[in-house]
Amino acid sequence: MGITLYELAGADEDRRFSPYCWRILMALRHKRLDFESVPWRFTEKDAIAFAGTDKVPVLVDGETSIHDSPAIAAYLERAYPDRPSLFGGPEAQALSRFYVDWTDMVLQPALFRLVVADIPALLAPIDVEYFRRTREARVGTTLEQFCADREPKLQALRQLLAPLRRTLGEQPFLAGEAPMWADYVVFGAFQWARCVSPIRLLEEDDPIHTWRGAMMELFDGLAAKAKGFPV
Amino acid sequence: MGITLYELAGADEDRRFSPYCWRILMALRHKRLDFESVPWRFTEKDAIAFAGTDKVPVLVDGETSIHDSPAIAAYLERAYPDRPSLFGGPEAQALSRFYVDWTDMVLQPALFRLVVADIPALLAPIDVEYFRRTREARVGTTLEQFCADREPKLQALRQLLAPLRRTLGEQPFLAGEAPMWADYVVFGAFQWARCVSPIRLLEEDDPIHTWRGAMMELFDGLAAKAKGFPV
Repeated sequence: MGITLYELAGADEDRRFSPYCWRILMALRHKRLDFESVPWRFTEKDAIAFAGTDKVPVLVDGETSIHDSPAIAAYLERAYPDRPSLFGGPEAQALSRFYVDWTDMVLQPALFRLVVADIPALLAPIDVEYFRRTREARVGTTLEQFCADREPKLQALRQLLAPLRRTLGEQPFLAGEAPMWADYVVFGAFQWARCVSPIRLLEEDDPIHTWRGAMMELFDGLAAKAKGFPV
Repeated sequence: MGITLYELAGADEDRRFSPYCWRILMALRHKRLDFESVPWRFTEKDAIAFAGTDKVPVLVDGETSIHDSPAIAAYLERAYPDRPSLFGGPEAQALSRFYVDWTDMVLQPALFRLVVADIPALLAPIDVEYFRRTREARVGTTLEQFCADREPKLQALRQLLAPLRRTLGEQPFLAGEAPMWADYVVFGAFQWARCVSPIRLLEEDDPIHTWRGAMMELFDGLAAKAKGFPV
């Protein structure tokens, strides 16, 4: 049967840019699991309706289909206990939850303000109108207006990264000596930004820059080789 | 020999209000370790100079003296491996680091803006002038001016608590089913605020309010019984 992952893609099928899908791509490789990737576009709701959702990632493993990235990670840990752990025990799994919530509610919104206007040009034609309409309704203006005047938004991002910067100045990965799920969650946000926008988010002497570079080299350079912009 | 903890105290020796000391008080009880507590005031630098610091907490265990709360927690875990773990393994210990940095750099500064003006009235007379002078130099105005107009500052605090609120809506403690070091770190900030200020920081239907209540009841109500204001 094998594992299938439905992943957001752009006009170029190789541009895989969902932060949530990147979490799962990294998690699957962490667990040394083979999988088939199916490119998916925002408007292809029917293609994933079987999983009870209208968003990717959707993971299908035999008879089981799961959506929502933390639920998929928990499933992989439970279903493949003999593979390398994604968490490092139940306490670490619980402690990872705040990383998800901080990434979803603090980091990604700050990145969204910087990169969302770069996305329409990369989308498959069938997605462009849908994406612009739904996102402009959410932000209450055009995407170009929303992302205008990037410099103060970039400074705001770097400021809210202060605690992450300190942590990554103290240890190579969020989970310590080697990356785990919390690292993949936070990294997914940066990889999303790199896949859609040429903006340079981090200074080269930033410990987060160093960590991101190490994350990009994992699994034979999976993230480094992915279609995107230089960092 | 036994363990001695130097702890910040106010005019009333029972008002122990350092967020960093609260982390260690909870950690010592978590590890079921007996200790002697020594009240200390800001200006008693000479009393802790032996430990190579001018700040509490300072923990003395036989021949060993340690300062800086994460270093003390790591020491206790290493020195007392047969007692209940403070972390739950090396990955969880590493994952706890971001909680320290987020608490130090995001949560505590937001609380400081709300409560610091309430502190001088509670200090031992020898500390009042020192505290006001050093803190006013840091904030560039009087403490009263700095804390004026509390309502928008309270709203800002509640806003930046959003990811913590979501996490604690999903699980009873940051570390899952039972509290660990990450919980004590974040809790220390709230307990500090409660010990010095009558301000009501959290709505009663906030999952953080529920979690704080559970934390206050730990160890026979250690934090609930401590001298402070109602929450």
